[in-house]
Amino acid sequence: MKIAELGEFGLIEYLTRNWSPGLVGDDAAWLPLPPGEQGPMLFTTDMMLEEVHFSRRFSSAYDIGWKAVAVNVSDIAAMGGEPWTAVISLGADSSWSVAELEELYAGMQAAAEIYGVVLAGGDTVKSRQGLILNLALTGWQRGPQPLGRDRARPGQLLAVTGPLGASAAGLAWLQAGGEGDCATQVGEAVTLHRRPRAQLAAGRWLAERQLATAANDISDGLAREVLEICTASGVGCQVEATAIPIHAGARSIARTLGKDALEWAFRGGEDFQLLFTCAEADWHQIETGLTALGCQPARIGRITPPEQGMRLLTEKGPEPWPAGGYDHFTGGKE
Amino acid sequence: MKIAELGEFGLIEYLTRNWSPGLVGDDAAWLPLPPGEQGPMLFTTDMMLEEVHFSRRFSSAYDIGWKAVAVNVSDIAAMGGEPWTAVISLGADSSWSVAELEELYAGMQAAAEIYGVVLAGGDTVKSRQGLILNLALTGWQRGPQPLGRDRARPGQLLAVTGPLGASAAGLAWLQAGGEGDCATQVGEAVTLHRRPRAQLAAGRWLAERQLATAANDISDGLAREVLEICTASGVGCQVEATAIPIHAGARSIARTLGKDALEWAFRGGEDFQLLFTCAEADWHQIETGLTALGCQPARIGRITPPEQGMRLLTEKGPEPWPAGGYDHFTGGKE
Repeated sequence: MKIAELGEFGLIEYLTRNWSPGLVGDDAAWLPLPPGEQGPMLFTTDMMLEEVHFSRRFSSAYDIGWKAVAVNVSDIAAMGGEPWTAVISLGADSSWSVAELEELYAGMQAAAEIYGVVLAGGDTVKSRQGLILNLALTGWQRGPQPLGRDRARPGQLLAVTGPLGASAAGLAWLQAGGEGDCATQVGEAVTLHRRPRAQLAAGRWLAERQLATAANDISDGLAREVLEICTASGVGCQVEATAIPIHAGARSIARTLGKDALEWAFRGGEDFQLLFTCAEADWHQIETGLTALGCQPARIGRITPPEQGMRLLTEKGPEPWPAGGYDHFTGGKE
Repeated sequence: MKIAELGEFGLIEYLTRNWSPGLVGDDAAWLPLPPGEQGPMLFTTDMMLEEVHFSRRFSSAYDIGWKAVAVNVSDIAAMGGEPWTAVISLGADSSWSVAELEELYAGMQAAAEIYGVVLAGGDTVKSRQGLILNLALTGWQRGPQPLGRDRARPGQLLAVTGPLGASAAGLAWLQAGGEGDCATQVGEAVTLHRRPRAQLAAGRWLAERQLATAANDISDGLAREVLEICTASGVGCQVEATAIPIHAGARSIARTLGKDALEWAFRGGEDFQLLFTCAEADWHQIETGLTALGCQPARIGRITPPEQGMRLLTEKGPEPWPAGGYDHFTGGKE
């Protein structure tokens, strides 16, 4: 069997099927400390490869370092925790100068300071091709329980902490030769691609008050994240396409390039907003609280009983949610 | 400045020079838990790249997975701690089949069970070239203080937990077309190359009794590890070349291939025995205790005042210890 047949997500599931249940399959592992310790501790890791996850053509070394910290912090945010300490593995080939790596570390350090992460060491190796940057991050769960994926229930709302599509739009803009150094909405989309923001305050706020029933960070596109919550919780959903908030810069870039901004929101990924579920009765409190934290929360749909399946409500009516991704946006390509 | 001018060790030091002092520069970070928690926690990471750190020509996927766990556990062993939980990042290109990756994970799981490591999740990405395997491992410090590098004092003994050179010899044997599947000393060297053993019990024993004053695991060759302890402690040393215990299989392979087994011990690396310092008065107790744990401890020299420098005592008399590596063995190359 070739890896492509399983895909990234199938592969993780397949390879870890014998591991301790409950540890694998959320944004971060949730680890009760051994007797005598307190906790629980959260533990996550993310690997970024040059020309797979980032490119020096579109991001500075500083941006790349920043992003490595932010994407890991985002996993802790999606559990409602707070980050603690990180170790870094760096693989670099001879095309990288010491000055560039210094910039990379400065970017990591700047993001670490903002998110309260202690950089605690690591490993440096010579790579055969391009830069490899891996961060592993621990965190703490302060609320009564982490924001898992498996507690969404029919009738609850499905919501996001802010507008989507900016990161993919920003990258498309750069790939089309656009500039990103202006204080415009387009420039903000480019900045969100280069230096994503982890929704740490929002995740912590939702977890401490037990207001979210389930949560994921939107690292792989809304389509994928909704699927993960529905699968883990054993529920269906109905998402209204027109309710999905699209970043203004993404709309603007889509118009200019003749692209579909909703497609970026659904599949582009790397927005790092949080997707969460909550009781409808709590929505007003959530909207007020998250807005006060600087978020732009939006309801995008509702959790339904499992027998109703996952559906996207468009102007043409409800459409099914293909398991492997959503064909509607790509004309069947996936 | 190019990376090669600094080298691996200089690069880490350079890039992390602004980080919190005390965190960086040992086998694992030593992290006091936040108020209310207990601890301290240890945290380490190691990245292994195909054709840099391992080759499918000489190791099975199972071996490679095993090794990724063992090398990280070895860092915890060198602190005198016990390992707790690990996250794994895997990058694979299309030359790797699912069956091979399954073997890799089975090897990780087998080593994890032996060393008491909880595998807790990770990240899987597509690489552009070869396999990338990163483990990050946390652990606990149970003794009063970890086995650092900076507490070696003049007059103390320098010792190792067992014979050296096996891993490098085993690799040389495989590279020369030799087989490793026999129950001989040569076969044992090959096995130690493929599935190194972390000296967890020895490290814990030395730390709990506070018998070692400083320790390192021998991952980068004895020459490098002694240098690290002497530099961190601000001391010199005198190592007797004839006292360095050489693995019997390494001796046998060296004879057959016309190589120098002492060179493998000094520079080969990946032996994962512990190098440690201790009071001479404690040596009898240490020798007895470690032998009871299945180790073959050996005194190899003595810590000296810093003004005496680092010296290797050979049959020709004392020789200086070059900072960048030991020229004696490479005829001035390096």
